[in-house]
Amino acid sequence: MAHTPEKNEFVPGKLLGQINSPEDLRLLSEEQLPQLSKELRQYIIDLVSVKGGHFGASLGVVELTVALHYVFNTPYDQLVWDVGHQAYGHKILTGRRDVFHTNRKYKGISGFPKRSESEYDTFGVGHSSTSISAALGMAVAANRKNEDRQAIAVIGDGSMTAGMAFEALNHAGIEKSNLLVVLNDNCMSIDPNVGALKEYLNDITTSHTYNKVKDEVWKMLGKISKFGPDAQSIATKVSDTLKSALLKQSNLFESLKFRYFGPIDGHDVDRLVKVMRDLKDIPGPKILHVLTTKGKGFKFSEEGNPTLWHAPGLFDKHTGQIVKSAVTEPQPPKYQDVFGHTMVELAEKNPKIMGITPAMPSGCSLNIMMKAMPDRAFDVGIAEQHAVTFSAGLATQGMIPYCNIYSSFMQRAYDQVVHDIALQKLHVVLCLDRGGLAGADGPTHHGSFDIAYFRCIPNMVVSAPMNESELRNLMYTAQLDKNAVPFSIRYPRGNGVMPEWRTPFEEITIGTGRKIRDGKDIAILTFGHPGNFAVEACEALKKSGIDAAHYDMRFAKPLDEKMLHEVFSKHSKVITVEDGCIQGGFGSAVVEFMADHNYSAEVKRLGIPDKWVEHGEQPELWRECGYDAASIEEQAKRMVLKPSAVLV
Amino acid sequence: MAHTPEKNEFVPGKLLGQINSPEDLRLLSEEQLPQLSKELRQYIIDLVSVKGGHFGASLGVVELTVALHYVFNTPYDQLVWDVGHQAYGHKILTGRRDVFHTNRKYKGISGFPKRSESEYDTFGVGHSSTSISAALGMAVAANRKNEDRQAIAVIGDGSMTAGMAFEALNHAGIEKSNLLVVLNDNCMSIDPNVGALKEYLNDITTSHTYNKVKDEVWKMLGKISKFGPDAQSIATKVSDTLKSALLKQSNLFESLKFRYFGPIDGHDVDRLVKVMRDLKDIPGPKILHVLTTKGKGFKFSEEGNPTLWHAPGLFDKHTGQIVKSAVTEPQPPKYQDVFGHTMVELAEKNPKIMGITPAMPSGCSLNIMMKAMPDRAFDVGIAEQHAVTFSAGLATQGMIPYCNIYSSFMQRAYDQVVHDIALQKLHVVLCLDRGGLAGADGPTHHGSFDIAYFRCIPNMVVSAPMNESELRNLMYTAQLDKNAVPFSIRYPRGNGVMPEWRTPFEEITIGTGRKIRDGKDIAILTFGHPGNFAVEACEALKKSGIDAAHYDMRFAKPLDEKMLHEVFSKHSKVITVEDGCIQGGFGSAVVEFMADHNYSAEVKRLGIPDKWVEHGEQPELWRECGYDAASIEEQAKRMVLKPSAVLV
Repeated sequence: MAHTPEKNEFVPGKLLGQINSPEDLRLLSEEQLPQLSKELRQYIIDLVSVKGGHFGASLGVVELTVALHYVFNTPYDQLVWDVGHQAYGHKILTGRRDVFHTNRKYKGISGFPKRSESEYDTFGVGHSSTSISAALGMAVAANRKNEDRQAIAVIGDGSMTAGMAFEALNHAGIEKSNLLVVLNDNCMSIDPNVGALKEYLNDITTSHTYNKVKDEVWKMLGKISKFGPDAQSIATKVSDTLKSALLKQSNLFESLKFRYFGPIDGHDVDRLVKVMRDLKDIPGPKILHVLTTKGKGFKFSEEGNPTLWHAPGLFDKHTGQIVKSAVTEPQPPKYQDVFGHTMVELAEKNPKIMGITPAMPSGCSLNIMMKAMPDRAFDVGIAEQHAVTFSAGLATQGMIPYCNIYSSFMQRAYDQVVHDIALQKLHVVLCLDRGGLAGADGPTHHGSFDIAYFRCIPNMVVSAPMNESELRNLMYTAQLDKNAVPFSIRYPRGNGVMPEWRTPFEEITIGTGRKIRDGKDIAILTFGHPGNFAVEACEALKKSGIDAAHYDMRFAKPLDEKMLHEVFSKHSKVITVEDGCIQGGFGSAVVEFMADHNYSAEVKRLGIPDKWVEHGEQPELWRECGYDAASIEEQAKRMVLKPSAVLV
Repeated sequence: MAHTPEKNEFVPGKLLGQINSPEDLRLLSEEQLPQLSKELRQYIIDLVSVKGGHFGASLGVVELTVALHYVFNTPYDQLVWDVGHQAYGHKILTGRRDVFHTNRKYKGISGFPKRSESEYDTFGVGHSSTSISAALGMAVAANRKNEDRQAIAVIGDGSMTAGMAFEALNHAGIEKSNLLVVLNDNCMSIDPNVGALKEYLNDITTSHTYNKVKDEVWKMLGKISKFGPDAQSIATKVSDTLKSALLKQSNLFESLKFRYFGPIDGHDVDRLVKVMRDLKDIPGPKILHVLTTKGKGFKFSEEGNPTLWHAPGLFDKHTGQIVKSAVTEPQPPKYQDVFGHTMVELAEKNPKIMGITPAMPSGCSLNIMMKAMPDRAFDVGIAEQHAVTFSAGLATQGMIPYCNIYSSFMQRAYDQVVHDIALQKLHVVLCLDRGGLAGADGPTHHGSFDIAYFRCIPNMVVSAPMNESELRNLMYTAQLDKNAVPFSIRYPRGNGVMPEWRTPFEEITIGTGRKIRDGKDIAILTFGHPGNFAVEACEALKKSGIDAAHYDMRFAKPLDEKMLHEVFSKHSKVITVEDGCIQGGFGSAVVEFMADHNYSAEVKRLGIPDKWVEHGEQPELWRECGYDAASIEEQAKRMVLKPSAVLV
């Protein structure tokens, strides 16, 4: 399955060392489960501290993971993990302990459950809030096939705020299928989650409602003195009568026709096992509300900032010190931080600017603005659809919202971009972080399609900066009144190229590129960050005697037609480079232009090919896909050094 | 604003005739509002019966519309209609009475609220469930600008099931902005709506919960005989104490931190006015639950089938007889009905087939299968995201789901198609009804982008039938075990071309087109239904002495490369035709192929240009966009009769 170049040097505890599948787990006695949980937690700490990866979420569900596989007959029973970065324990217990050290490495196992990796991974995940829909499909299929499988969705409270989870609950409530939803409530997604649902969960967790009503009845009856002390016994009876009705009806999930159980302590593995056993015998849709602590059992997370420990990188497991690479000279910043700081700079000058992100304030660095200007920056929870249309609503009132959503998550809000922003030509700036290959998170998180799916929408500006300075200038340009159109700016995960990035703002005319170098042998047209690969390639080509022109096009829409006329008038060999899918993307726009204007040239489009690209470091993936500097150089050589193809 | 070729021959009632804006309305006394409502209802009946359009929804909100504009200071206060096909009364009261007879006609006013049409149309709608997000954006902007505007969203119970509405409620609950959500509860979307929320709304409507609890307390205390009749007075006190807590906590909306009011009779305009006046003074997010009857005041709808009267076409307002055009010979069926009947045929043979649609069973004709095989066909409510991932869940268990969603609504489920179906290479058949220009519903409903947004996804099959027989054959092909891949089939709104459509099933090899005619002067490559336009164009060209080849490509992905090699080897002039956007669509795939294989030819791509196309009859729009039969003919003549462009 997975290519495992390195030997696994991690030593599991005694019990864990015996577990090669859930069948082994089910041979243990219940009394052994706390010890196994302890060993599993330690194994994750040992491993993630030196290999990296998601951390807090998996620690939080150790006991839940053990209990689920102990009680349910996986893989016959179908277990779906929502999002999936909490599934490390699941992977370790389901036959992947010995390859787990390759987690998130190139050619190693995936950081998320994945159907092709194991029969225990019933549904591939990565994006949030899909688990209830998928598990309901499984439950309905089992029902129709007269199989007694259980389908189980494990979903966090953060994921529960996404509309799709609600859609699934709404449907599940009227199906009679055996669906168990485990609500893993740690009051967090990556950032502390927001919204009314969170407050609601907190309310029912503390049984505030029920207790308050009961107290009031108790007090009131106590005061009715003519009944003397007996009044208290009436109150008890009243309470008992009301209890079930009250608890049942005061519950949002019961409103949606689920049977609700909990909340229970998610770190008490004995209790979890007992409750789950009981639930096995209860038919129909049911929800088990489990309280967990993100980072449980690792004191630096429990006592510190759980957001920091979501995916901390490498760290010393004994001291809680996060490993920072030693740097001797100024480094280029992350693009996301350029976005974050530039937001504040622009918003200070333009009072109409607002910032919006659905649950990624630390991932896209909008948290910088949220801290500086809390009234003007919003984290709306895992709710991409709402984030976009809320931005549209703001724009109707003359505000200029910058809505930041990772490229792959923008797929969730595609209709809202089309229907609410572009069709109405509203002045909203869509900032797509993680545009292009995202690295270790893999195919669910690669931002492959945005250029293609935005380029077909009328009125949209589709832009990408080649470096920090261009990002700042595009952000500046996008808020000018004369540019009051739907304006998208996409940029990659990771670092830029300019240690001195805080350059003065300059307007960029929409639909204009810039020529980086002239050349006579071949033209290289780039879109966004891969322009830097082309700069390197051109230098190398020069050494081989090839004189390449390089154009940083900046806009996939509108195209710089003047520049393209120049390119196709001068060149018969053209390479396009983008960090996006080559079907329908920037290069496709260029060949459309060529066809529309009856130019003829040999054009090679470099970018993400028509296949799913797995996880790995970005440079590994750029290489694999054939658009890193070396690949561009090789491609140019192939085209320049061979005899021209005979044109038909 | 709107081009109004015909004179308005409709005569409003005496009061309605005085109302040219909500300012005029607000001059009326409250006592006059019932009469105005009556006249407004009659005007809608008079007009829609002979001009067509949506019907039931607007009749249901006549009093609500009058009350909203009477109480609130529109357009300063911002009123957002969800979906918008209930906004006829709103349009008539806001200065558009005299052009309303042009509703949904080419160059006439839109059937939906539209910002470019009136300042009273604060937000363009068409797709469901956007109103709360948009209105929240408006409310937050007003708050930040210290304006005392009210923002009001009017949303149906059907629209409330979409996840995006829930996302907006979740966010609104923690904002302190002046948002009023009017829940227009008629227990219907187009089809009777489904899901747990509907049952829940029914529960609170009948106050079942509260009444039941109260009754139980009452009965129990009555039985405690030692307290004699006084026990009843205790019960009264208990009830009073509990009432607010209970009502508050038993309410789903209160769970989400909204203040909930209602339910109230939505046809009692006096009461609506009084309640809305009270609500104006209550700050923060609040929801008013209003009960209405779809088709209210038109007895044939009230007593009959409201789904039928959603948009009945033309009818006799006195007899309720729906006008059918006289036909003398067999007509081609609607594509949607071919889908519906073929589903049943295939499902009878293949037990793995299931049918899923999110709230469009009558629109896509899955209702035929729902009736014939209720266990195997699902209407999951307005929940495109869930529909797709639920289908993916079914597919993991070996089922073959056919998920039918209109092309423009599929935009809502784009991420789920990418992440849950295509990435996992699951065997789900995505059927996109309303692919291409949708006609009178206009730009929100045109299915313009699906070819482009699907074509960039790895693993996807993107197909379109040219006629009924090909639709059947593609549906047949898609369920064969050897074709277990994500398979999309898109077809237009409206009728096909084959009166004898029930042809025997034949497999179509994936990625193969068919040559309809050979020719030497030019090649026409078509995708889907416009192939019929090309047949007509080729006949006409023949009369002009031009010999055109015609290829029905059937697949935009994978392309029939063998066929394309033939085309580009033989032809230097090529036209592509599709009922979709030309940026990134089928024609773009063809020019990519041309570039990849270093062919050179003059290629003209016909399809939906890069602009928003307004509403009108389909033939009017095909003509406007330049890809009807006459346009293809003209284009071919231009290319064949002029001297060849000199290739660079």
